[in-house]
Formats: sequence, C-alpha cells, structure tokens
Amino acid sequence: MPIRTLVWGENVHEQKNKVVADNYPEGMHNQIARLLAKDSNISVKTTTLQAPEHGCTEEALAETDVLVWWGHAAHGEVKDEIVERVAKHVWQGMGLIVLHSGHFSKIFKRLMGSPCALSWREAGERERLWVVNPGHPIAKGLPAYFELEMEEMYGEPFSVPEPLETVFVSWFQGGEVFRSGLTYRRGTGNIFYFRPGHETYPTYHDETVGQVLRNAVTWAHNPNRFASITDAPNVPVDKAIEKIEERGPRLHQHGEAGFR
Amino acid sequence: MPIRTLVWGENVHEQKNKVVADNYPEGMHNQIARLLAKDSNISVKTTTLQAPEHGCTEEALAETDVLVWWGHAAHGEVKDEIVERVAKHVWQGMGLIVLHSGHFSKIFKRLMGSPCALSWREAGERERLWVVNPGHPIAKGLPAYFELEMEEMYGEPFSVPEPLETVFVSWFQGGEVFRSGLTYRRGTGNIFYFRPGHETYPTYHDETVGQVLRNAVTWAHNPNRFASITDAPNVPVDKAIEKIEERGPRLHQHGEAGFR
Amino acid sequence: MPIRTLVWGENVHEQKNKVVADNYPEGMHNQIARLLAKDSNISVKTTTLQAPEHGCTEEALAETDVLVWWGHAAHGEVKDEIVERVAKHVWQGMGLIVLHSGHFSKIFKRLMGSPCALSWREAGERERLWVVNPGHPIAKGLPAYFELEMEEMYGEPFSVPEPLETVFVSWFQGGEVFRSGLTYRRGTGNIFYFRPGHETYPTYHDETVGQVLRNAVTWAHNPNRFASITDAPNVPVDKAIEKIEERGPRLHQHGEAGFR
Amino acid sequence: MPIRTLVWGENVHEQKNKVVADNYPEGMHNQIARLLAKDSNISVKTTTLQAPEHGCTEEALAETDVLVWWGHAAHGEVKDEIVERVAKHVWQGMGLIVLHSGHFSKIFKRLMGSPCALSWREAGERERLWVVNPGHPIAKGLPAYFELEMEEMYGEPFSVPEPLETVFVSWFQGGEVFRSGLTYRRGTGNIFYFRPGHETYPTYHDETVGQVLRNAVTWAHNPNRFASITDAPNVPVDKAIEKIEERGPRLHQHGEAGFR
Repeated sequence: MPIRTLVWGENVHEQKNKVVADNYPEGMHNQIARLLAKDSNISVKTTTLQAPEHGCTEEALAETDVLVWWGHAAHGEVKDEIVERVAKHVWQGMGLIVLHSGHFSKIFKRLMGSPCALSWREAGERERLWVVNPGHPIAKGLPAYFELEMEEMYGEPFSVPEPLETVFVSWFQGGEVFRSGLTYRRGTGNIFYFRPGHETYPTYHDETVGQVLRNAVTWAHNPNRFASITDAPNVPVDKAIEKIEERGPRLHQHGEAGFR
Repeated sequence: MPIRTLVWGENVHEQKNKVVADNYPEGMHNQIARLLAKDSNISVKTTTLQAPEHGCTEEALAETDVLVWWGHAAHGEVKDEIVERVAKHVWQGMGLIVLHSGHFSKIFKRLMGSPCALSWREAGERERLWVVNPGHPIAKGLPAYFELEMEEMYGEPFSVPEPLETVFVSWFQGGEVFRSGLTYRRGTGNIFYFRPGHETYPTYHDETVGQVLRNAVTWAHNPNRFASITDAPNVPVDKAIEKIEERGPRLHQHGEAGFR
Repeated sequence: MPIRTLVWGENVHEQKNKVVADNYPEGMHNQIARLLAKDSNISVKTTTLQAPEHGCTEEALAETDVLVWWGHAAHGEVKDEIVERVAKHVWQGMGLIVLHSGHFSKIFKRLMGSPCALSWREAGERERLWVVNPGHPIAKGLPAYFELEMEEMYGEPFSVPEPLETVFVSWFQGGEVFRSGLTYRRGTGNIFYFRPGHETYPTYHDETVGQVLRNAVTWAHNPNRFASITDAPNVPVDKAIEKIEERGPRLHQHGEAGFR
Repeated sequence: MPIRTLVWGENVHEQKNKVVADNYPEGMHNQIARLLAKDSNISVKTTTLQAPEHGCTEEALAETDVLVWWGHAAHGEVKDEIVERVAKHVWQGMGLIVLHSGHFSKIFKRLMGSPCALSWREAGERERLWVVNPGHPIAKGLPAYFELEMEEMYGEPFSVPEPLETVFVSWFQGGEVFRSGLTYRRGTGNIFYFRPGHETYPTYHDETVGQVLRNAVTWAHNPNRFASITDAPNVPVDKAIEKIEERGPRLHQHGEAGFR
C-alpha cells in the first residue's frame, strides 16, 4: 500500500505576491505534491491553511502516514488546538517533514521544545548542500552535493536540539553554513527538517530536491500507530509481573488515575 | 563563585497528607536544598508554587544558575506564562533538573516536545539504579548501583526524545525497567531528568540521591547566558561576510523582521 | 529483491557440548537462518568459522546485504585480516547484526572502538526485554515486553559508545539491567547489537526473538554500497567548485596522495 | 589541582621542511603547549614520536589527564602496542584531543571504528568556523564564528560515527563544508576532534584556536580513572543481589573467566 502523504501549504504568498504566484501558479503545495507523486509508492493529497480546521481534521490525519508542512507568513494563524492535534498524531506515529520557513511553525517549535531560531538573508545567493551522512536513507541516490543557484540564506546557530542524525550541511555564498537536514523522533513519529524552499525562488522545481523529499517521506513512514503513547497507565499491585507485596503508605486509591 | 541554585517545590502534599508532612516536615524543597547545600560550591534558595509568580519572577530566574523542579499534584496550577518564562531562561543557559513526577510538569513537557508518559505503580517496592555511563560527570563518585528500598515504580516506554546520554537505568522488584537518568540540551541550557523521589517515601533523605543531585547541578551549570538565542536576525546583503550581489526577487524590505 | 543475509556461526560448542548439540542439532547458525527465512523478503545463507576464510571471502561479502554474527568460544581464532575485510564491507554499506556473546567478537570491538565489556552470570535466570522505543523499526509488531525464561545474565555497565538509539532494556531476575538492543552506524553500514542468545538455552527457538531478528535485518539493509567511503581524495585547486587562487606554501606536490 | 596535559607532536615536518620549521621553530607541540599554558588550571608537558615508546609510557599516561595529539606524515610509525596502550588509558578516563591530520592517526581510527576519511585541498584558502552549539563548554567565550585566513580544506563526508554533539561547522572558500568540532566518549574517556592545524600555516599562533584548545582540555578532563572498565567479571550465583536458584545447564565452571 502506498504511503499516504498530505502536503500542507500555507497558500498565502501565492495569492498576494506576483513572483510567488508566477513561480507556483497552482500553489506551492501542489508543486510539492507533484514532486512526491513521481514515486509510485507515495500517494499524495494536499490541503491548506484556509481549509476548515486547516485541513487537519481528525479524519484527515488518521488517514495520513506522512504530513509535509510548508508555512511562512501565517504561522500565527494556525490554531493552537490544531497544532496539538497534529502533535498528537506525530507522537502516535505519523511522520512529519518540515520545510524551510517551517522552522518557525508552531508545530515544529512545539515538537522541538527549543527556539528554532537562525539568522537569514534574502539575496538570491548560491546554496550548496553537502551530504554528510551518505548511508542515511534520506541521502539515497544523491550525489556528493547539489546546488541551488538562488536561495535564501539561513545561518547558524540553529537553536534546535541535537538531532538523531545530521544528513545535510549547507554552504552559502555569503559565508555561512547551516545544518540543512536533521532527523528526530518524538513519541513514535519520525520528523525530518529540510532547509531549502524560499517561495520567491524555483526550489520546488528542482529534481534533486524532489528526490530528497521522496526519500524523506519513505524514511518517515511508520506503518504502525501507537494510540497509547500518551497514556500513563497504573499497573495494579496484584498485576505486577513479578509478585510483590504492597508496602508503606500511598497517595493514590487503587484504580485512581495519576496527576497530570 | 558558587552555583546559584533554586529549588522549586510544589508544596501541596506536605500540607495535606500526614505521611508526606511527617516525611518532610519543612517541605520537600527544603530537604532537597539541604542535600545540595552539602556542596560548598552550591548556594541554594527555595521557592514554591504558592509564592507570587510561583517564585519564578524574571529577577529570581536571572539570578539562578540551575533550577531544580519537583511537582506532582498541581502541575495544572502552574501558569502557562511562567512556564514560558522558565523555558526562555533554560534556552538562554539556565540549567534545569526535573525530578520524579516532574516528568508530567508543564515545563518538562514544554521542553521535550513529547508526551513524557510512562506506566506506574505505588507499592513501596525496591528500586535499584545502575550506572550505565560511569564516566559521565553526573555519576562521579557513585558505586556501580544504589538501591532505594521503597519507591514508586515507573515503567517503560518513557515517551521522551532519545537523550544526549543515558546515565542511569532502574530495575524494579515488580519486573519493570526505566531509564532513570537522562541528559538533554535545549537552546544553551542543560537539562537532567532524575526518576526517584515519590513523596510518601524517604528518598530525599538518601545520601546517594543527594550526591546525584549535587553532581547534576554541577554538570548543568552553564556559566554564560545567551540572551540572543531566541533572536532571528536578518543579515543585510551589504554586511555579508563574503561579498555577494543581491539577485532575484525578494519578499522582505530591507531591515524588515522575519515572520514568526 | 530479497535481502541477502549471511548467518555466521562459530559452530564450536555445537560440536563439543552435548547440551548445545541437543539444543541446536544443525548448529545455531542454521536455526537462526530458519528464523530469518520466515520472512519472504529475506534470503538466507549460512557459513561458519571452519569454512575457508571463515566463509567471509570478498565474493561472499560482496553478495551479502546483512551479516548476522554469533561467536563465543573462538573469538581469538578469527583472523585479523578477515575482521578488517568485514569492517570494510560494513563501512561500505553491509548491515551487521551482532548477537549475544558477539559483544566480545573482534569485529564488534573493531567497529565500536571501546572495550565492549559487561558483567555476567550463567544461572538460567529469567530475562524480560522491555521495548523502550516502540516506534523504532526493530520493535515493529512486538508486545510491550517479552520474556526468556532461562538466559545468561549480562549486566551494566556495557562499555560501548552511546548508541544512535536504544531499542530494548532487559530486566534480570537476579537484580541487573542491560541495554539489550542498540543501534549504530559505521561508515554507511547499519549495526544492531542484540543481547539474548546463550547457547545452552533455547533462545533461538523463541518466536519473538525471531521477529526481532527479522526486523533487525530489514532495518539494517542499505540497498547501496559506497566503495569510496574509505577514500581520501585530493581536490585539485583548479577543480575547486568555487574558483580560488592557490596561496602560501604547501607540503604536497599536485596529485600526490595524502599521508595515512 | 591543574589538569595535567600532555601534548604529543609527531615532530617530523618541523625537522624536514623549512616552511614548517620557520612556522614552529620549537616544534608544533611546544607551540600548542604554549597556547594551553595560558590557562593557569592547565599544566602542560610535551613529548614526540621520537621519544622512547613515543613518550607514551605507562608512567607518562598514568600522570596524564588529557592527551593532545598532532600527527600527519608518520602515522604508520606509531607502534600498534602504544596505540593499544593509549586506547586503554582513554577507556579508563584519560581525555583525548585529536587535531587536524590526526583524523588518520592510528589512535583516532582505533577509537572511532570507522574510516575517518575526508576530501582535502592544500591551497591556503579561507576557513570560517561557525559555532553551532553555543552552550557547549568547548564554545565558551567564543564569538559567533572565527576565521583562519589560510588553511587546508577538509571536505565532507567525514566518515566518523555520529558524534555526541557537533560544536563547529566550517565554511571553505572553495565551496566545501566540514564538521570541525565533534565530541565522543569511549569507555569513560572524553574525545574531541578539532579540524584546523595544517603545519604550513600559522594556525597554532591564532588566539581563538588557543581558546578552543583550552576549553577542550577543560571539557575532556575526567577527574576519575576507571581501571575496571575493561573487566568482564563473573557474578557468582550465590552473590546475586536478588536471591536466585541456578537452573538449567551451563558452559562455565564456577569462577571460570569468560571467553574473549
């Protein structure tokens, strides 16, 4: 069964900015979806900020194996309740690919627990992404490096937690570097942050970027869901695996839930 | 200069529950403070949930190198605004030691970005903590293992992110195991989670527990603060380290702040 | 195409010790192979210490996607030259699953760069393996824990490097714990250490152990080989991606190889 | 008590190459020692390849808290027996700082278990080291980045294990990037790899490089030694912490050592 992927696009600059609209006449989300659909093991849907519940209903997320998130101008408009819902699905096993300016999305900051800040410059400069971890599944089939002739610069320090693994590091023409491909797990969900994708440049028309995204979706896919990952079950004394006798005082009545 | 440590105690069960009050007649926070004060390189203050702003004013946190957090029954009463303030101070370099039931505190969940759930049993059973990382500073001077004759059981899976390093793993009489000492960094702040400390048992009267706490405070201490860790500065094109020419279209006016 | 797996068995105690021979009349390697072959995506061969070049010829390894290694009494008889060859194949992308007493095999110590020591007791005691990382591919389909009624005890500290991820932690009846499932990457090869498997007990007749092994082979499989991972190529100045002028003195003549 | 540091210099190019000799008239090891000695908490000795046992006698290492290693042309002349001795001391808690071309030293490859390869170019180009982990002790007091106007280029992929933490990432004028500051632990010994230091350039006359080295020595210092880290003790059944009965067959006689 193909990996059920949902591409979430903010869809704001495409409507307001002629450069972005010319670049992505059907919206960034639809162009990202096109890149993913080149892999027959990936089935793709798209949705946007403007859809009811931002397109992230319980039903939609329950049918999503991997969510791909692009946002920038309207991070603040994403409702907190929806962010919590997406986080819960990630914890339960849904994969999440966060793109570019999504470093400041509510969902990424929620899952990282850190500022996720960086320095930046919008000058259409050259970015060169080096594969530092060639054996990682997300680097499958890639050359030693690939270039994006015009990109926004993001500079270190990128205030995210130390990742499970670093896959890409970027060189920028103006003198900066950036850890451009980072993996995490939160609960049972796999998370990949991928740096490129400024909306005024043709990044999502680049074939190597497409391959990274397809690899990332394949890597992030967890075939199982773990609905119980947020539970904190009490194990009754008489159900202990090894027989024990209850001793000493206790706070809780038998069968009572713990404090949260 | 000694490490300025602030012990935060919820101070609820000490007031309501005779067993806890007998165990910790001056409050758990004051007993934890006593353990820390045995190290002359640590200076200790205490505060509680009931203090104005839960004792976590900007002034108090600015003068704190390491915050030690014990809470249980009243996680929900800690104001979100204070949680955000504490998180900001951690990101800027304040150390944080989270104890026992603090796994479900708002501040720990905020910084982990994961459910932080586990299974539990309150039966006064034996816990044995094994040092799995004897070279880690938090294990300094400890024996191969130490025992707490009566403790609450916490069982895996503990839904936290993969740590920087695992320092302790617990064996429980009833058959479970638990990763009992885990290190993290968020922003520039060091975080240590330490499992033992159920309020109905005399855990914070144990000398080895005291040594772990003193080691943890010493390890978590970062002598610098990084107020800029949450900034996302724009680097103007003409200030690029390597000279570049601006190319292509842009979204932002010069000097404009980025989107958040 | 199925994952080409080679099970390497030391095949010493099966020949000398009646208990082991009765337990594994066709040799441990063949019983491990039988567990793997239940997955139609895995094709299995076996070999032993006694085969020419220990069955690890260049040709055999070139046709192996994942090597599974069980050894104990005869670690010292494995030729250093073969160990180096296996290490090279791992670096180039061959997966490696190291079982039980293989913690002291030359190949595991070679790839870890650490003592790989532990404490042990042979008493036929109960081991209970807890899944601490339920979202990891190696834990796919497993229950919260599984038990082996009779196993050898291995105790911490296990002097291996901090792993990429910890998948299992064991509880032992006699009071110890052990990190029983650990992942690593060396070069482009994935490595998994899995603790159970003492030869006098029926561990490789256990169906859950079989599932772990099949999951591990699937996880460790890297479809690509990276023959260049051990190269240290000189990049000539006139081939620099960004044009630079050579400056200052130099040690090396153009085109010369570096020092090793 | 100050941190007892031993700087090991290969001392080959200083004797053969006029540029290097002019750069470091007293040898690179003595110039590195001078940088370290600016910290009054560090006491420094030096030794070289040419000393008996390469200056790494049991006595010398027993009195060394942190060993700093610079080698290049003569990696192959370091005796395997001395490499094993140094590795043992690292496992037991001696810190190790490996510099520049030391990525291919026997001791670094021994401890990493991986190829430790990279691409390189000797063109006197500009290197800019970015601090990606500003809260790490090795980055203490450093600016956001620092530059070395003339350095040898090292390019990714650097085939080392995923580190505990990445502290520096380098930008090179010719278009490459490199993870230039990486931390590891092997056994109980802390290891830091630091990239700069080509012998034909004045790198060890740079004050920021000196600060990094002093920070690294301070970080790597483990005040304890763990002589038992390589032991694999048998725990007799009657000494089990929790009382157990021996069951089933066994391979080993009571009190017998395990296989290695």
